[in-house]
Amino acid sequence: MKRPLILITNDDGAEAKGIHVLTRLMMQIGDVVVVAPDGPRSAQSNALTVTHPIRFTKIEDKDGLMRYSSTGTPTDCIKLALNEIVERKPDLLVSGINHGSNSAINIIYSGTMGAVLEGCENGILSIGFSLSDYAFGADFSYFESFILQITRQALQNGLPHGTCLNVNAPVGKIAGIKVARQCDGRWTKEFAKRIDPQGRNYFWLTGYFENHEPEAEDTDEWALAHGFISIVPAKIDMTAYQAIEGISKWEL
Amino acid sequence: MKRPLILITNDDGAEAKGIHVLTRLMMQIGDVVVVAPDGPRSAQSNALTVTHPIRFTKIEDKDGLMRYSSTGTPTDCIKLALNEIVERKPDLLVSGINHGSNSAINIIYSGTMGAVLEGCENGILSIGFSLSDYAFGADFSYFESFILQITRQALQNGLPHGTCLNVNAPVGKIAGIKVARQCDGRWTKEFAKRIDPQGRNYFWLTGYFENHEPEAEDTDEWALAHGFISIVPAKIDMTAYQAIEGISKWEL
Repeated sequence: MKRPLILITNDDGAEAKGIHVLTRLMMQIGDVVVVAPDGPRSAQSNALTVTHPIRFTKIEDKDGLMRYSSTGTPTDCIKLALNEIVERKPDLLVSGINHGSNSAINIIYSGTMGAVLEGCENGILSIGFSLSDYAFGADFSYFESFILQITRQALQNGLPHGTCLNVNAPVGKIAGIKVARQCDGRWTKEFAKRIDPQGRNYFWLTGYFENHEPEAEDTDEWALAHGFISIVPAKIDMTAYQAIEGISKWEL
Repeated sequence: MKRPLILITNDDGAEAKGIHVLTRLMMQIGDVVVVAPDGPRSAQSNALTVTHPIRFTKIEDKDGLMRYSSTGTPTDCIKLALNEIVERKPDLLVSGINHGSNSAINIIYSGTMGAVLEGCENGILSIGFSLSDYAFGADFSYFESFILQITRQALQNGLPHGTCLNVNAPVGKIAGIKVARQCDGRWTKEFAKRIDPQGRNYFWLTGYFENHEPEAEDTDEWALAHGFISIVPAKIDMTAYQAIEGISKWEL
């Protein structure tokens, strides 16, 4: 069997520790093309660059590994890769390893997961990996063997149409893996208000995640809080099918 | 009954025609607070501003209408509104009217729909309105009475937990309304490649939407192509529940 072609991106930038770890791991499985932002693009969701043009630059070219950086968002990187860089459709897209968790509602804000949704949309087996540690020098070592195993199983078993994986790991030793659902919760107290030297207010994003179902044992937040890796299968079809019948009865 | 408090945003900017039309319509229903970007933020998805602080400025203050512009993304605008601006939780969030369709997969890229997902996440009845016309001076007149009717019905009937609405209208006369699902499809040929005066490549985002199921009559794309308004109920829980059992059998 031919070695799989693996496309990698992230939202922490092409030189973040997490993407270097992920690249080293994926080179054990296949040929790797990295197309990643040229600096941090955290919380860029599925943002696209539409008001100005973007570029990409080759930063490494060796046997089995090509690396490019781009001025765009993570989703731009995947679009550039698929339209302008790779010779054939990749067999796999992996994104990360993100410095910081993308569990629960964070899937909708994350640039790392935005890239995964973009890959999925294009019919590519796509997985996002995130570690619950924002530190620049975060320790990914406990996560590594699980990333290899999850990736190999995904390549072997495939995923249903329009489905991708959001994989998050706790800090430190890992108790095992839970296949989970996205936890219900939201962010609160989201801004730090400051006053500039001219006396005008400005606001930094911050906040606390409020878990609305801390007792539920089938969520990604529960898994992480109990030392497990969470695997949440995610859909790009956001339709709330169960709501269609009710709305069809409205007086419209 | 007290007049509902209605929060409005968009991704085309606080002075786009579409948001002025929506504001005028919503003032027939309740008290209105607009918090919208200070310029275009199309395709900003659920992007958040994390690398620099953001601000907001009051731009209008009259009976039943407060308007603010912000340096942030549409999702930032909703977070600012809920955390720093409104006195109580709004009864309704409406976003738009977007200049351009947000049907099918465009829901994941749209800043207008990003704001809707953000409102939904915060437990607010949230609706995005988009017209399939990108023009600066687009004609929203055929859409207006439908927007009022859909909004009134949503306020009267409510929506299930974690569910919001993505409403799109065709250009010109409207044949009626279809409650629909998100069409399966993707963008192709996404970049226009240009060469700068220094001989280096740069890339503008462009592309064509490829409908993967043009014959299916229950999709938003079908509705729009046949002159109908589409209403797609969308969920913020992206879990692919049907995939959980299969993945649980992987060798992990």
